[in-house]
Amino acid sequence: MKALAVDFGGTHIAYGVVEDRTLTFHEAFEVARATTLRSVLATLEEELRQCQRIFGECSGLAMGFPCIVDTSTNRVLSVLKKYEDATDIDLTDWCRSRLGLDLRIENDARMALLGEQFAGAGQDEDDLVMMTLGTGIGTAALIHGRLLRGTHFHAACLGGHFTVNYNGRLCSCGNVGCSESEASGWALPLVASKWQGYENSSLADIHSIGFFDLFAHAKAGDSVAVQIRDHCLKIWGATAVSLIHAYDPNALILGGGVMGSAEQIVPAIQSYVNRHVWSSWGKPEIRAAKLGNKAALLGAVPLLNEESRAPIELQ
Amino acid sequence: MKALAVDFGGTHIAYGVVEDRTLTFHEAFEVARATTLRSVLATLEEELRQCQRIFGECSGLAMGFPCIVDTSTNRVLSVLKKYEDATDIDLTDWCRSRLGLDLRIENDARMALLGEQFAGAGQDEDDLVMMTLGTGIGTAALIHGRLLRGTHFHAACLGGHFTVNYNGRLCSCGNVGCSESEASGWALPLVASKWQGYENSSLADIHSIGFFDLFAHAKAGDSVAVQIRDHCLKIWGATAVSLIHAYDPNALILGGGVMGSAEQIVPAIQSYVNRHVWSSWGKPEIRAAKLGNKAALLGAVPLLNEESRAPIELQ
Repeated sequence: MKALAVDFGGTHIAYGVVEDRTLTFHEAFEVARATTLRSVLATLEEELRQCQRIFGECSGLAMGFPCIVDTSTNRVLSVLKKYEDATDIDLTDWCRSRLGLDLRIENDARMALLGEQFAGAGQDEDDLVMMTLGTGIGTAALIHGRLLRGTHFHAACLGGHFTVNYNGRLCSCGNVGCSESEASGWALPLVASKWQGYENSSLADIHSIGFFDLFAHAKAGDSVAVQIRDHCLKIWGATAVSLIHAYDPNALILGGGVMGSAEQIVPAIQSYVNRHVWSSWGKPEIRAAKLGNKAALLGAVPLLNEESRAPIELQ
Repeated sequence: MKALAVDFGGTHIAYGVVEDRTLTFHEAFEVARATTLRSVLATLEEELRQCQRIFGECSGLAMGFPCIVDTSTNRVLSVLKKYEDATDIDLTDWCRSRLGLDLRIENDARMALLGEQFAGAGQDEDDLVMMTLGTGIGTAALIHGRLLRGTHFHAACLGGHFTVNYNGRLCSCGNVGCSESEASGWALPLVASKWQGYENSSLADIHSIGFFDLFAHAKAGDSVAVQIRDHCLKIWGATAVSLIHAYDPNALILGGGVMGSAEQIVPAIQSYVNRHVWSSWGKPEIRAAKLGNKAALLGAVPLLNEESRAPIELQ
């Protein structure tokens, strides 16, 4: 199957052409200053029409959004940051009338897991959880090869908002002590600046600390960086245990830009899981994602091929 | 449908005859000194044969176990405390040859949720989570009216072992800071005895403190009891948030003996959920279970009527 794929990010929209497990073409454009989804769709339409001209007929378009979406009606349910008009737009109609294509939309973390199962780190498994560590923490679960969505489409993609520290930091979601508010990209500067010894560590010179800096300084031996890195690994490990206890997978895939430091992360999470997961059969394997930021685009074909568009894939 | 129902507890086995939503007859016998499942089954066979003689032909037998079970083969998967022979017994064969009946077995928390949906607090909903607060903390989830089981039958019934305090107490499951190790019946004496001021509180005279004592002393105004009760409510609230984020229900049912103090518990958990759950549609309702310790027995008919015996109810 040949299909068009789009992945909505906070600052960029990635799009491309996929042919089964191959990303034939991909590109991105900036949307840092865009304030409406309509304006973004106008640009996207031009780019996707160009793809159709160059790469020929496609079977459909799959789009990933960083929010909750109704996969049965192709509607954005939760407000997409900065696009206030998103919930009002009939995307099915837009796609049909402008591109002549069928559309499927999905939460971006779920689409990335479909991609990793179809063409990446999960090709041998039907029971998978994925945790994407980035600015936020995205999660998704496949049970018996089917995405778990839940009746309001929230299920399995809010794993970054499980409580791991009931007396912890207030999260942007309204909960306290979520893994996201304890150890995500947006929380890291808050965590670091309050860490004992931070002001005298090599991290203090960094303007707005990110995981790239943290893992680099930890690898170089800065003791505060090591402590904060180990704090993050513990939070991610605790979250992995909850996700495994919740969804019962054979393997858990870790994704996100931070996986550039996979050699510091995967063994630590595997060890935490081996020590702390309860199981009647064995311990799930922790794997690094293989597709990087192309995972969601490569989820297009399995998403378009899904048998049912029902909100719940249980029947 | 008329059916036989059995609920395996730690010290007692409850059994009975159900006719749709009515528990026609129920009884229990003690197993405090039993060391093998075979010896318990011998007693159970006599009692159930007696039920068959008195109440006539039944369509099947449903049994709930306080452990992980393979619902497709009717095998106990995790060691049932004190019954070392449990995993070796072919229960299907036992039921067919001794009672002439078809058998379904299930985790007891899942069976209780089926009961509450069929005849109790969840009759109007297909998307439910149940949390049973007792010696341990049992959980179960119905999505679109189907039990979530997972590929190894762990899914949704290990919610008492989500991490809520990543630096917390070691749990019997091997994890740290589970809701069960922070606020269950078995953990309560450990939590209380280390509480500041405990030795001078009215709780100090109690031999092995239980929730009944805790809620009574809190209601009577003992300040340490109030603090420990509020700690437990906070842990249960944090767990409810994680369960709601995990399984996306319309309502969460709270069960267990502690619900004798429902008036101190339900409003507190509802308030916690309203403040801390993220949702695109509204906040799930917190409800007290209606069937008490009869819930699992009343889950017999819906369990026996389930369409599929597949390990995963996703197809």
